[in-house]
Amino acid sequence: MPKVLITTIPFGDKNRLPLDLLENAGIEYLINPFNKKITEEQLADIITDFDAIIAGTEPITENVMSCASNLKFISRVGIGLDSIDLLAAQKRGVKVSYTPDAPSLAVAEFTLGLMLSLLRSIHISNFQMHQGNWHRFFGRRLEKVTVGIIGVGRIGSGVLKRLQSFGTSKIMVNDILPNRELDHDYNLDWTTKEKIYKAADIISLHLPLTQITKNLILKDHLLSMKSDAIIINTSRGGIINEHDLYEVMESGHLSGAAIDVFEQEPYDGQLRKIERCLLTAHMGSMSVDCRTRMEIEATEEIVRFFSNLELEGEVPQDEYDVQKQCL
Amino acid sequence: MPKVLITTIPFGDKNRLPLDLLENAGIEYLINPFNKKITEEQLADIITDFDAIIAGTEPITENVMSCASNLKFISRVGIGLDSIDLLAAQKRGVKVSYTPDAPSLAVAEFTLGLMLSLLRSIHISNFQMHQGNWHRFFGRRLEKVTVGIIGVGRIGSGVLKRLQSFGTSKIMVNDILPNRELDHDYNLDWTTKEKIYKAADIISLHLPLTQITKNLILKDHLLSMKSDAIIINTSRGGIINEHDLYEVMESGHLSGAAIDVFEQEPYDGQLRKIERCLLTAHMGSMSVDCRTRMEIEATEEIVRFFSNLELEGEVPQDEYDVQKQCL
Repeated sequence: MPKVLITTIPFGDKNRLPLDLLENAGIEYLINPFNKKITEEQLADIITDFDAIIAGTEPITENVMSCASNLKFISRVGIGLDSIDLLAAQKRGVKVSYTPDAPSLAVAEFTLGLMLSLLRSIHISNFQMHQGNWHRFFGRRLEKVTVGIIGVGRIGSGVLKRLQSFGTSKIMVNDILPNRELDHDYNLDWTTKEKIYKAADIISLHLPLTQITKNLILKDHLLSMKSDAIIINTSRGGIINEHDLYEVMESGHLSGAAIDVFEQEPYDGQLRKIERCLLTAHMGSMSVDCRTRMEIEATEEIVRFFSNLELEGEVPQDEYDVQKQCL
Repeated sequence: MPKVLITTIPFGDKNRLPLDLLENAGIEYLINPFNKKITEEQLADIITDFDAIIAGTEPITENVMSCASNLKFISRVGIGLDSIDLLAAQKRGVKVSYTPDAPSLAVAEFTLGLMLSLLRSIHISNFQMHQGNWHRFFGRRLEKVTVGIIGVGRIGSGVLKRLQSFGTSKIMVNDILPNRELDHDYNLDWTTKEKIYKAADIISLHLPLTQITKNLILKDHLLSMKSDAIIINTSRGGIINEHDLYEVMESGHLSGAAIDVFEQEPYDGQLRKIERCLLTAHMGSMSVDCRTRMEIEATEEIVRFFSNLELEGEVPQDEYDVQKQCL
């Protein structure tokens, strides 16, 4: 009977179906016994005889895999692969699948919520009202600002779609390979990251975390933005350097930031001191429907693997190539 | 030289043009010297020799007008007329204009921001993160919920438009006179308020405050809503009974509420104790562009009045009729 370690939490919480799928397939499982994000050391400790992982964003490193002599398969709940050493997995013959489409709708919609909250100071007014302070904050509308989107894949293009009904007409976009098909539907200014930093009122990041994107945005980049610019990161912690963001905002630069993802999660750092920094707990993909879809897709892939059926979500070669380039 | 009392604040703050318009027309003005919302008594005290008011939501009652022997014109910055005794004004030959279109875009967009914040617990996560608590809240997406809109005029239909790009397909609507032209663009279920209370996941109010809509939503109505329903009021305080809302939420009913308008402003009441009640300081219309447009339109109307030019924003007879019906 194969044994699966489910590291991501919550799991099977709002919908038991993924657990039923495992049970019906005769697969034994253990859900993250620490009830918070597992560290590399903890994972190395408990992984020993598991055959597969249903994984969140815990570090599945070469070291972890070297402690997992039975490990044959990793099924990632979500899209980012920065937490998995793909090359080490490949070397050991451990296959890896993921669910890249499932979280997109939830993250794109969440990003719009963050934009509107920041533009209208909804989070700040709520905080102050609960403390008994009445202040009518001025705000800006999406029609009147320039939005810059860095990374225009599944999620970035979902953000584009949602901006349309708000009348946003000035949209700057950047990606390694510009998807020119989007030009049929949207009036986009494909440009450099540096030009976006300088000209955009809202800058939203929709990038994977790689050795290239880690610390992509440092102090000088932040200082090159408009003094009343807004920056949003719902992709991965570490793409904006957190310490630099804190220092720059502390100095009064930028009118707001929304950070949903952190270098270390749970987050407990200095950005908590900045009232105009909107902080959320890695919730971009946490709509019930998308989270359920992610869990079910990742579980179905586990069942397929142990039933010797063809996998449907196997990570494509170019994701391995990205990690290879960064060595 | 005509003298104008500007009661609404802020005024001319982000854009001086309205003040320039007055000065160029040789009109003397005084901006609200209390720097907060003026009470009826204060207004009666200072109104004495002013010829006109550029008004916010202060109570311009029969009593106030009886202290204003020179008053000839009220130019309201905004749309709601609940604060003005229109019949008393008519009796005294005081004309009234307003700017009904200017705030719509800002309020509709703000409403979407509140919906997304409530659906994804953005405001609660932000509050908790700043206190050092990490909790990943589940949420819902607009595509998966039923939205009920009560009052489908300028603002309500602006909300409809913005919901489209989020894929919301189940929309229940209610208005005194259903605007069936909207059926060309949207798939709407025109129904009763009671059915909306029972079936909608999000209920958003876009109504004027009249004797009919005051206390429209009382305890029993709130209790008839789904236990995880969300209610939003960006229209006028008093349409939802605040005390009833507090009691119902305190008991655990409703998953969230967003209240931007209050019976008494500045607000300092019990809803502050409810974490899942998102509170903002009457900021729906406070985008720089809409607020500026409101101030300019109201000021231009003042200039037209004192130049004996035809008025462009005079309040139509049916607004007087509404107040008459409620006597």
